[in-house]
Amino acid sequence: MRINSFSFRVRYAETDQMGIVHHGSYAQYLEMGRIEWLRELGVSYKGMEENGIILPVISLQIHYKKSAYYDDVLTVQTSLQKPPLVKIAFDYKIYNQNQDLLAEANVVLAFMDKHRNKPIKCPDFILDKITP
Amino acid sequence: MRINSFSFRVRYAETDQMGIVHHGSYAQYLEMGRIEWLRELGVSYKGMEENGIILPVISLQIHYKKSAYYDDVLTVQTSLQKPPLVKIAFDYKIYNQNQDLLAEANVVLAFMDKHRNKPIKCPDFILDKITP
Amino acid sequence: MRINSFSFRVRYAETDQMGIVHHGSYAQYLEMGRIEWLRELGVSYKGMEENGIILPVISLQIHYKKSAYYDDVLTVQTSLQKPPLVKIAFDYKIYNQNQDLLAEANVVLAFMDKHRNKPIKCPDFILDKITP
Amino acid sequence: MRINSFSFRVRYAETDQMGIVHHGSYAQYLEMGRIEWLRELGVSYKGMEENGIILPVISLQIHYKKSAYYDDVLTVQTSLQKPPLVKIAFDYKIYNQNQDLLAEANVVLAFMDKHRNKPIKCPDFILDKITP
Repeated sequence: MRINSFSFRVRYAETDQMGIVHHGSYAQYLEMGRIEWLRELGVSYKGMEENGIILPVISLQIHYKKSAYYDDVLTVQTSLQKPPLVKIAFDYKIYNQNQDLLAEANVVLAFMDKHRNKPIKCPDFILDKITP
Repeated sequence: MRINSFSFRVRYAETDQMGIVHHGSYAQYLEMGRIEWLRELGVSYKGMEENGIILPVISLQIHYKKSAYYDDVLTVQTSLQKPPLVKIAFDYKIYNQNQDLLAEANVVLAFMDKHRNKPIKCPDFILDKITP
Repeated sequence: MRINSFSFRVRYAETDQMGIVHHGSYAQYLEMGRIEWLRELGVSYKGMEENGIILPVISLQIHYKKSAYYDDVLTVQTSLQKPPLVKIAFDYKIYNQNQDLLAEANVVLAFMDKHRNKPIKCPDFILDKITP
Repeated sequence: MRINSFSFRVRYAETDQMGIVHHGSYAQYLEMGRIEWLRELGVSYKGMEENGIILPVISLQIHYKKSAYYDDVLTVQTSLQKPPLVKIAFDYKIYNQNQDLLAEANVVLAFMDKHRNKPIKCPDFILDKITP
């Protein structure tokens, strides 16, 4: 399965008084990871929303192994767990600039019709790009 | 002018590695302050939005005098700067549980018609409550 | 097992453009939950840190069932999963003001000696209060 | 005066239910701006903190002119207001990918000795780089 790698620098505001990145900030990192995974596939999440498809998060699981620190350059590696149906599941690994594995995670999202507020199947324009 | 006092406890996630509340968190504190000011007046900001009126922030000014710490119980004192027209301006003071003045602030917001994306005058149902 | 219930109002800043509370905000809600669970037990997390014990998060798992909205009054129900050793595991349920179950979660944290950066056993002053 | 330009993409979590970037997120954008301004000068803010100098924010002023949206690529232009003494003042302009001016801001910070918790003068290793 294709892996997208996305790197960014830890912001000062993301630290807490333990001197490490607050564990809650990782949800945003994973979100950036899957959006870049989609972008690399040729899919704009912004465009999807404008076309009435939203992707609310159904479950989130993160295992924290090592701390991230202010000014670290982190890399989120995002991959698809399996071909999506009404849900799409991503696996993640987060590394720092020394290639230390900081966290492993997985997130499941549901395809939803925004206007009817109903679950839908993964749109064909995504499926076609995943399994050509 | 009427002053609304709203108290809440500092969250751990709001601290940074300096060991104090990150200065950016105060924008949320001020936002809670003016929403409680409106609520006390009998106005639901949520209801206003549902009726098509939004209040984007036009300017924000904060002077930080003393640090806030994790687990502090802060009080935001919110007051109206002057009767609102197309804009509404709030003055703020933030205190900790020892009555230390931590910050002074002011925020100006604009009344906007959400659907036409145009500025509007302060709705009468607010004006009537401010100047009975 | 003892359950702590902690209620608070959703902040505007916690919403996203889907019109619901961003899933990442829940990490903060759970953190407030366990801190209030400890406080009810007579333990100050702030005091623990000042005495050199920190509690980094080891794992976080959240299942989202229904959306939370701006201005909702949420209740976090926090309970201990089992007696703590070197780790402490909490189970959570989050409800809205209509008693809808919005999310179930569990979080595992490790007791650490802040200065030596080493894992330690759950301090006796906590154990004594849990199993009197 | 030297201007640092720093660009980044708006995160989904930074939006609110108005469908725009929450005004409170800008404090983080300005913080990234001044840290990159220092980095370009050859100064690591992280290193400064490790050497016992911290820079708490004294005042923050932001004027919002146009909204920022999810997935926008914003550019923060950071410049020094005047040579620093015990305080350092930055001026900011924030643009989107269409070169629309979204916000103007200024932030004043104080040089502090972290261990003695006392104000200090701007360190020579910064002054030397500003006025060679």
